[in-house]
Parts: sequence; structure tokens; C-alpha cells
Amino acid sequence: MARYQVILAYDGTEFHGFQRQGRGGQERTVQGEVEAALRRIGWAGRSILAAGRTDAGVHASGQVIAFDLDWEHPEEALLRALNANLPLDAAAQAVRVARPDFHPRYDARARRYQYRILCREVRAPLRERYCWRVWPDVSVEPMRRAAADLIGRHDFAAFGAPHHPGRSTVRNVSQAHWLEDGAELVFEIVGNAFLYHMVRRLVSTLVGIGQGVLPADLIRKRLAEPAGEMVPGLAPPAGLNLVEVIYPPERET
Amino acid sequence: MARYQVILAYDGTEFHGFQRQGRGGQERTVQGEVEAALRRIGWAGRSILAAGRTDAGVHASGQVIAFDLDWEHPEEALLRALNANLPLDAAAQAVRVARPDFHPRYDARARRYQYRILCREVRAPLRERYCWRVWPDVSVEPMRRAAADLIGRHDFAAFGAPHHPGRSTVRNVSQAHWLEDGAELVFEIVGNAFLYHMVRRLVSTLVGIGQGVLPADLIRKRLAEPAGEMVPGLAPPAGLNLVEVIYPPERET
Repeated sequence: MARYQVILAYDGTEFHGFQRQGRGGQERTVQGEVEAALRRIGWAGRSILAAGRTDAGVHASGQVIAFDLDWEHPEEALLRALNANLPLDAAAQAVRVARPDFHPRYDARARRYQYRILCREVRAPLRERYCWRVWPDVSVEPMRRAAADLIGRHDFAAFGAPHHPGRSTVRNVSQAHWLEDGAELVFEIVGNAFLYHMVRRLVSTLVGIGQGVLPADLIRKRLAEPAGEMVPGLAPPAGLNLVEVIYPPERET
Repeated sequence: MARYQVILAYDGTEFHGFQRQGRGGQERTVQGEVEAALRRIGWAGRSILAAGRTDAGVHASGQVIAFDLDWEHPEEALLRALNANLPLDAAAQAVRVARPDFHPRYDARARRYQYRILCREVRAPLRERYCWRVWPDVSVEPMRRAAADLIGRHDFAAFGAPHHPGRSTVRNVSQAHWLEDGAELVFEIVGNAFLYHMVRRLVSTLVGIGQGVLPADLIRKRLAEPAGEMVPGLAPPAGLNLVEVIYPPERET
């Protein structure tokens, strides 16, 4: 028996989120599909561990999961066996043996998310699954300046709720910037952890700033005064992708 | 009544090709969906015209269709009405009034296709709809040289069948090259017209050349000696996209 760490990618469109529903839940989830695939190769565990519980429609190219398994073949063979048993919209990207106490969520030092927007008046059928289509067009410079306001240790209570009520809403954001990728704009953010809906609420706010319908200093002001109502608006899930989960070097072996 | 020219984009994954099936056909087709959308805004025609009949699973970002319609509002309003009535995986990109005798297929001077490959051992769930995932990896240089052999007027009988048996298999290819787009390789080809399955057969051959399993001069040889069996192998439809249909300037107004 060893603990395995697996980098997992999935197209979130057809999943009702990562997390398996309770006993009565019949919805298709990433966790449910991974556990079903593992059972077909001999796993008898109760539940896999995961770094993040992505919402319905949110994608991942670098989710990290872990489980204990008796496997007498190389990790390479486990990667192939997993992918042969997973549906086409989910696939293990890498497999390796982790420390016996490795926990993908508690050991994570940071998460990297990307959120894609496409500024375009008419629907783009080849990109709708992976972008938020935004119109009217945005000015990127105010969005870049507002994104820079996010960097640092702040109370993000105006932009999301803690996953457990009453817990801290302070998070450390180490990177937050906009990249250009062809016709698309990509918001990239790295933080130690994120509040519920935090990235999607930030993107909605940044786009409002870019469109000139929200004040350019709204993020700075609400980080300075986090009490009160949360900012309204939530960018749709399709644009969001959990790209990477980062571990401290000593948890990597 | 005027003839309208519409640039149409669609994700081909969930369509059984462009062309509406015969009377008994119950399959979902692009033509069927466009005609249903048009009927909801008052069209009473029998059949729309199209530049190309893409196969099941093949995408388009620049298909061109035409139809006659009584429409008393601006073209802009027709674009919006069409998109409000089309399913999410198809959308008009531009609408304009054409000459009364405009025919998207007969008037087309050339078509531009792109075919995307992603060289990667493991499945990439976020790209599987739009790429052919190829492994082992390819050497791009032999593929570039073989692509250059395609340019010019050739008998392509070894790479596809005419849409109507007995017709000419000679076609003019004006561009054929590989582009890099991030981790993906994009084969772009422009020709006056294409034989049935010609682009997908060419890509399959080019990838075989890139992987070193087919002779590097196979395309040159089979263009010089087109008689005999067609080359085996057909790249999957998901990688293919009809990007643009090109008309002579005098048919543009």
C-alpha cells in the first residue's frame, strides 16, 4: 500500500463540480468518476483526497488528488490504467508515489488559477466552453492596475465567503495579472488559498472596472474596508481553470 | 426579398455534419438547425445554400451560407435574431446582403482549412474536442517539407475522392504550411476546392511522415503518380476547422 499523488485534468462542462454528492446524490462529479475508475483497478478506499473542490462547470488542468492503493506495477502503468478507466473529459496527467501522510489540500502552499475572457459581441461557438464572452469591450489598463491591488496579504471578505463559516477571510495573493493569448485575455492569480467564489467574484469586478461601469479603485477600497455586503456579480464558471497546485519542496518527495 | 450571405461558426462535435439528412433523417445537423432558426423568423425557403459540407465532428469558424429572406430590418438585427434562435454551438458571425445570384459554393474562389494536432502521450481533456492528439511525437521539419510539396496544381486522386464520381481530381493548392500555436501544431491549407476527406487524409500522411513511419517523399510521389489505391489513414474530424471561404472581389458586393 502506498499513497499516490495524481495531477488530474478535466473539462468541467459536463460535471456537477468536483465533489461527490452525499448518499442520495446522482449527479455526475469528478470525484465520483475518479473513484469509480479507481475501484475498477482494485481500490477499496472510502474517499479520495483533493486539493480543491472546483464548482460545477469549472475546469482543471492541474488539480491534485491523492489516495492509498496497492499497486505492484510502475507509476506509468497506473497512469495508463487510470486513463483507460476515466471518461474522456477527465485524465490523469502524472502519477507518483507521495509520502504516506501527503494531503493535497493541507500540504498545498499555493494555487494558481486562470480565468479567460473573450471580448466579442457575437457568440464564439468554438470558445464558449472555456471563456466568458464579454461585451461591451474592456480597457485593459484599468484592469491591470486593479489586479495589482490584489497582491499582498488582505482580508478578502468583500469578495468571497470562507468554506467554513466563521473562519478567517484573510488570504495571501502573490501574483495577479492579465495576460494576452490571441484574442483572449487571461487573468492569472496565485494565492495561498481562496475563499468560496473568490476568483469569479474578482473577475466580475475587474471586468466591470474594465468596462467602466465600476470605480477603478473598487478593489483597493473593499480590501481596505472589507466589512459589509459582498460585491455583487459572479463571472460564469466556464472561464475558470485550476491550473496548478504548488507544494513546498519538502512535501514533493 | 433579398439574398443574404452569412458567415457561420459552429462546434461540430455534437452535429452529424453540416448537411441535412433526407426526409427520414433524424440526426442533428448544422443545416437542419440553421433552417429551423430561419423558419422561426419567417423564412419559408426549401433549403439554404452552403460553401462546404463539413463532415460529422468537423468545426467551422468561417462557413458561408446564403438564403433568400424578406427582412425589413437592418442586417445587424438579422444577425441577432439568427443567434437568438440558433443553439449555443452554432452562431452567425456576420450577415450582409449579397447579389441575388450569389452562391456560396459555386462563387467561392478558395477555402482555408486548419487542422490542429497536439503531440502528447496523455489525454488533454480541455483540448480533445479541437485537436488530434498524436503520439509518438513528430519531427516538424519533414512535415514542413512535405507540406510544401502540396503547393501547386496537382491530381490529388491518391488523397481523396471527388464529391461526384467521375469528376476531376485535380485541385489547386495555393498555401500549405505548419504553424505553431503554443503546444499545438496547426496545418493550414488553402485550395480552390478539396476532394472528399482530402485534408484529413493529407494530415494523416503528414503526421506519418513526421513520426518517421511513412517515407518523407510520399506526398511528392503520389502527386506524381496519382493512380492506384488511395493512401490509407484518415485524421479524426475533431482537429479540422473550415476557417474561411474566399470569394473574388466582384462577388463580394
